[in-house]
Formats: sequence, C-alpha cells, structure tokens
Amino acid sequence: MSEPQATPHPYYPRDLSLPGYRPNRVPLSELLGLFFGLVAIVLIGTWILAGRYNKPVADRIVICWFVACGFIHCVLEGYFAANHETLVGGGSYLAEMWKEYGHGDSRYLTSDPFVVCMETITAVVDGPLSFAAAIAHLTGSRHRYPLQLVVSLCQLYGDTLYMCIEYKEGFVHGEFGHPLHFWFYFVFLNLFWIVVPLLLIIQAYRALVEGTNGDIRRGSAKKKK
Amino acid sequence: MSEPQATPHPYYPRDLSLPGYRPNRVPLSELLGLFFGLVAIVLIGTWILAGRYNKPVADRIVICWFVACGFIHCVLEGYFAANHETLVGGGSYLAEMWKEYGHGDSRYLTSDPFVVCMETITAVVDGPLSFAAAIAHLTGSRHRYPLQLVVSLCQLYGDTLYMCIEYKEGFVHGEFGHPLHFWFYFVFLNLFWIVVPLLLIIQAYRALVEGTNGDIRRGSAKKKK
Repeated sequence: MSEPQATPHPYYPRDLSLPGYRPNRVPLSELLGLFFGLVAIVLIGTWILAGRYNKPVADRIVICWFVACGFIHCVLEGYFAANHETLVGGGSYLAEMWKEYGHGDSRYLTSDPFVVCMETITAVVDGPLSFAAAIAHLTGSRHRYPLQLVVSLCQLYGDTLYMCIEYKEGFVHGEFGHPLHFWFYFVFLNLFWIVVPLLLIIQAYRALVEGTNGDIRRGSAKKKK
Repeated sequence: MSEPQATPHPYYPRDLSLPGYRPNRVPLSELLGLFFGLVAIVLIGTWILAGRYNKPVADRIVICWFVACGFIHCVLEGYFAANHETLVGGGSYLAEMWKEYGHGDSRYLTSDPFVVCMETITAVVDGPLSFAAAIAHLTGSRHRYPLQLVVSLCQLYGDTLYMCIEYKEGFVHGEFGHPLHFWFYFVFLNLFWIVVPLLLIIQAYRALVEGTNGDIRRGSAKKKK
C-alpha cells in the first residue's frame, strides 16, 4: 500500500491526507469569543428590536432564534460553501473557525460532497428564509407559520442526515468522546438544530392546522391579504 | 497498490468492489413491468376510491400521487433501508429491482452512508406521512395542506441532496449518458420527486398563507377542531 506524503495535522481519522494544511494562528479563546460574541450581539440587538414591536416574550425568542440562524447560515456556513476547497490552508477568522470546528468533524476540511451540498443548501435556502421568517414574525404576517415550518423542516432534515451519516460512518471524523471537539462541537451545537426546529415545527404545524395563522398586523386583522 | 479479488459485475465505477455479487435472473422487462404495473394498480385503485368521495380531478391527482409515494417509500425504499447490506447478493424481486436501479447509481449496492440514511428517513418518515396526506385530502381535513407541505419538503430536500451529491462526485456511480440507466433511472425518475414536490409545496404554502385551509369535511365546515 502506498502512503501519500503526509502533512502533519491534528485531525481524525489520523491517516487523513490534508495537503496544504496550515495550523491556526488565532488562539482558541479568541475564535470562540468572536463567534459567540457576535451571536450574542445579534441576539441582544434583535431582542431590543423585537421589544420595540411590542412582541410577547415567546415571539421575541422565536425572532431572535431566526435572526441568529440567518446570521450563522449566511455568514459562517455561506463562507464554508464558497471556500470549502481552500479552508485547510486559509488564515482568515472564518477559515480558522472552520478549522477549529474540523476537530469535531474533519469532513469540513476535505470538501466531503454531502457536507458541501448540505451546507450550500443551508446557506442559500435556509439562511435567507430564516431572515424572512424573523421579519414575518416581527410584522405578524400570515407568512410567519408557513415560513417557520419550511425553515425548521429544512434545518431538521439537513442536521438529522448530517448526524446520522456520521453515526453510520462510526464517528471516524473526530476524536470520539472528546469533551470539546465531540461533545460540544459535534453533539451539543448540532443538537440545537434538531431540538429547536422540532419544537418550532410542532408549534407551526399546530397553528396552521388550528387556523390560528391569521394576519395580526396592526389594522389588518382578519383582512384576507 | 494491491487490488482486491474482484467479482465481475456491470456497475460503475468499473473498479468498484462488490463481493458476493449475484447477477439478476428475472428479465428486465419483467422487473420494470412488475414495478410500473403495481404502481399503475395503486394509481387506478386510488383514482376510483377518490372518485367515490366526489373529489374534483385536481384533488384526485394529488391523492393518487401521495398514495403512490407512500407505496414506493414504504415498500421499495423500506426494503432497501432494511436490506441494503445484502442486496448485491439478493434474489428476491425487490432485491433485483434495486440491482437493476444500481446500474444508474451503484451507491445503492455499497450501503453508501448518505443513501442509506436518506432512504431510511424516506421510508420511515415520508412514507407514512404520504399516506396520511392522502387520507387528509380524501377526508378534507385541516391537516391536508400542512401535511402536504411537510411531506413534499422532505421529498424535495432528500432528492435535491441526492442528485447534487452525485453531480458533485462527477456522476461516477453509473454510466454517464446511458439512455436507460442514466437518463431514465437516475435523471427522469428522480426529477419526478423534485418537480412534483416543488409544485405541491407552492400550492400548500399559498393555501396556508391565504387561509384557505379550512376543514371541508361534510358537516364540519368552519368547525375549529
């Protein structure tokens, strides 16, 4: 068996070939701080904005969720979809974030066809629709529950497949059981996009079946269009 | 490079290893005749049944579609989900159907993790929900458009990913351009589950946004539950 000339790297499986790999220069704390800091700013900003629309707390939480999703899908996952081929040697903040996440799932560093297609759909479809769902909730439009159902179902389907395939492949693309890489990055962060969409699908489905999808915009209550 | 002891087979890529491969014994015309014959019986039976419920033609077509989907998802794809590991050496009608389809996409004969996970979701989720959507349309329940939206979106997402991944992998799992294997099996049959779900998603989404999702069961019009 001939072995390719290996570039040393910290990813799994250990014999993975990652030519052109360039180690991260930004410290872990800075990468995670930047990501969660930006998400926090997005959440706080949206929370305040939704408050100005006099939205009840439950609606404000849903709006914050969709804006955060739109931000993550379009920016982080959009960057991946556009740059997956050069990520492993990249030095930008976003490339380094993906190289950090790659500890939990190296498929992100090898342009795995499923991951690339799923992330492209997430960035191009789920991202803009997340913002649309947030706006629909903010304005109380009749589109809010249909959009919530569509976005959440896409997220649930994509993420379920993502986790199932890695399970089927025996969790070989990360260090199984590693507290940060496996449990936090791969399990915890991804479970978010299973549990929350599932709850939002149930909520939207019920509202649509029970016919409580009326237009609640000021001055247009019960108006058909 | 050491080559595994190859079992001769007609699939692509030509160097694919398929240990235990057993050629089909049922003639092609019989396999296709059986599949399309059964689908035709399901369609005709459903058409007659829907007629007894005095459904307009458009509704009857949708009901026929969902019953045919339920049948294909649960029986054909359910069989694949349960038996994918032994398909390549199988001799049942369903195994031979999959070996025939495998000419267009050999991922079905190698337990490709994406295909197995996607088909399992299709069999376990899309299949029963297709029957539920058909019943909801037949009875005019308020569940009909929400269910139509959910099922069609799952079908569209799964099939889009399926075709995109094979495109991304360079159509290596079948003979590219082959009239029957590529164009009919891989392109034409799969395009069905892109085009029809897309149309049904638009129809259901519009009905839900416009609030024309009322209960149309006899004697329960405008009833909330």
